[in-house]
Amino acid sequence: MSITVVGSVAYDSIETPAGRRERCLGGAATYFSLAASFFTDVRVIAVVGEDFGRKQETVFAARNIDTRGIEHTAGKSFFWEGSYLENINEAKTRSTELNVFASFEPKIPDAYRDSEFLFLANIDPILQRRVRDAMPNVKLVAGDTMNYWIKDHRPALLEVLKGLDVLLINDTEARMLAGNNNLVQAARGVMALGPRALVVKHGEYGATLFYSSPSKNRGDELRTFRAPALPLKEVVDPTGAGDSFAGGFFGYLASQPEQTPTAWRHAMFYGSVMGSYACERFGTERLQQISRAEIDARFNVFRELTHLD
Amino acid sequence: MSITVVGSVAYDSIETPAGRRERCLGGAATYFSLAASFFTDVRVIAVVGEDFGRKQETVFAARNIDTRGIEHTAGKSFFWEGSYLENINEAKTRSTELNVFASFEPKIPDAYRDSEFLFLANIDPILQRRVRDAMPNVKLVAGDTMNYWIKDHRPALLEVLKGLDVLLINDTEARMLAGNNNLVQAARGVMALGPRALVVKHGEYGATLFYSSPSKNRGDELRTFRAPALPLKEVVDPTGAGDSFAGGFFGYLASQPEQTPTAWRHAMFYGSVMGSYACERFGTERLQQISRAEIDARFNVFRELTHLD
Repeated sequence: MSITVVGSVAYDSIETPAGRRERCLGGAATYFSLAASFFTDVRVIAVVGEDFGRKQETVFAARNIDTRGIEHTAGKSFFWEGSYLENINEAKTRSTELNVFASFEPKIPDAYRDSEFLFLANIDPILQRRVRDAMPNVKLVAGDTMNYWIKDHRPALLEVLKGLDVLLINDTEARMLAGNNNLVQAARGVMALGPRALVVKHGEYGATLFYSSPSKNRGDELRTFRAPALPLKEVVDPTGAGDSFAGGFFGYLASQPEQTPTAWRHAMFYGSVMGSYACERFGTERLQQISRAEIDARFNVFRELTHLD
Repeated sequence: MSITVVGSVAYDSIETPAGRRERCLGGAATYFSLAASFFTDVRVIAVVGEDFGRKQETVFAARNIDTRGIEHTAGKSFFWEGSYLENINEAKTRSTELNVFASFEPKIPDAYRDSEFLFLANIDPILQRRVRDAMPNVKLVAGDTMNYWIKDHRPALLEVLKGLDVLLINDTEARMLAGNNNLVQAARGVMALGPRALVVKHGEYGATLFYSSPSKNRGDELRTFRAPALPLKEVVDPTGAGDSFAGGFFGYLASQPEQTPTAWRHAMFYGSVMGSYACERFGTERLQQISRAEIDARFNVFRELTHLD
């Protein structure tokens, strides 16, 4: 089943201990769709400027990603510059230029309207909600957000959360959103705002899935599943790892006939697999090269990394 | 097979968001031996003062822990006071009084000399080495250390590492010891100093086991296994969680006929189980109450938390 994703398609200038790249293709929707494309059909909604040309288009085309929802407009594409020199796990933003993204009005192509899965990448919650409302028939909606929206745009974000099945955020964001430092209590707090499942990303330590499951004696019970991250001997560039996790996670779920607990667990592993590959090269370089066979080989490495027998 | 452990038996005054306890029984050797006692026979080497009486003795006796190596001397026992008010994952030390521990000279009872397993808890590496050298026939030696010894007593610590099979430390310590921020590279660096296995503890994110295993094509290969920590809805007191992990881990290993890769993996889970129980009450309260049946039930919770099917 196909996924429609709305989010940023951008250029990133990145510096890490491994080196520097100028204006490489990036953006949450880019990483998400590349990662998800190994599992299912993906359709993108975004806006780009005149600096987005055939070369960038080819990156999506090579993975059969539908780009009819990428609007081309006058001006420059969203641009982000950041570094990970002090701490490979924490980006320091040097500059953010919204450019054409500042007046982004998502337009949904008619050809996207039969998508059964919708992913709302990290953008203004007002836009997330607009897209959500415009696609009332989707079967499963997942989304991401960030500290800026949690802190300064809470009412709009709360409206989005009501319409989400799955929220994917990091530890700090989960604690901030719930106003609770204990992760389990924070998860309950976040899920009370709407999502019936929550994926909390722990960076180099993996991710935890919280979901409620009907229990014999006690009504709904909070269930958890932990997927590790792969200990990598070199993290070249962690940019987009979280979006790639989301793409692997949601892409795998969309490829399954039913969203059983087992499918959710496998989805967590495929999310970790795609996140680990994203870190191995700058930008989207690694995601452009991998094969489904490599993905499944790494899935087995994750199994060995975690399973007793 | 029995384990001899050398380390601190102490009193702790602890403040956490859940409350406060004055002078409860603590110390690395206490937590370690209580946790390990559910799996195998444990013998303790330590020193205590006149404030250590029948009540404290009973805590060990109730778990059949051999305390003939606990020396009673004039003065007061080691005392630590700390709090976790700002961050439940990080102790802030308010005061440390070495007391009788300042002149600790470990004495090994003859009855301990047939122990096949030795655990060197976090104490002065000069003492760790002395005990190690006095027990040349042990089959497997594990140890712990801390930032203070890594930073200011490196030569003595390096001597200890040469005689260790397994080192258990946390992330910061591993990175500091190897002088490398990448965990995999740090693990290789630490293992080049002696230990053939390294357990890096990640607090609320679990722990990673690194061990070398003969590989067909490439000589020795670095293998990894990750055990999660249990997401707890309330961490009452994390004091001793790392020592309890070590006790569960090493106690389980000592209970096995052979140290196979499967045994090591199970040991990581039992370590996590004991660490999770330690956090549920103040001090050693929870470790004094649990049963082996509860331990195995939680082992199964860990399996569900991590296994795909």
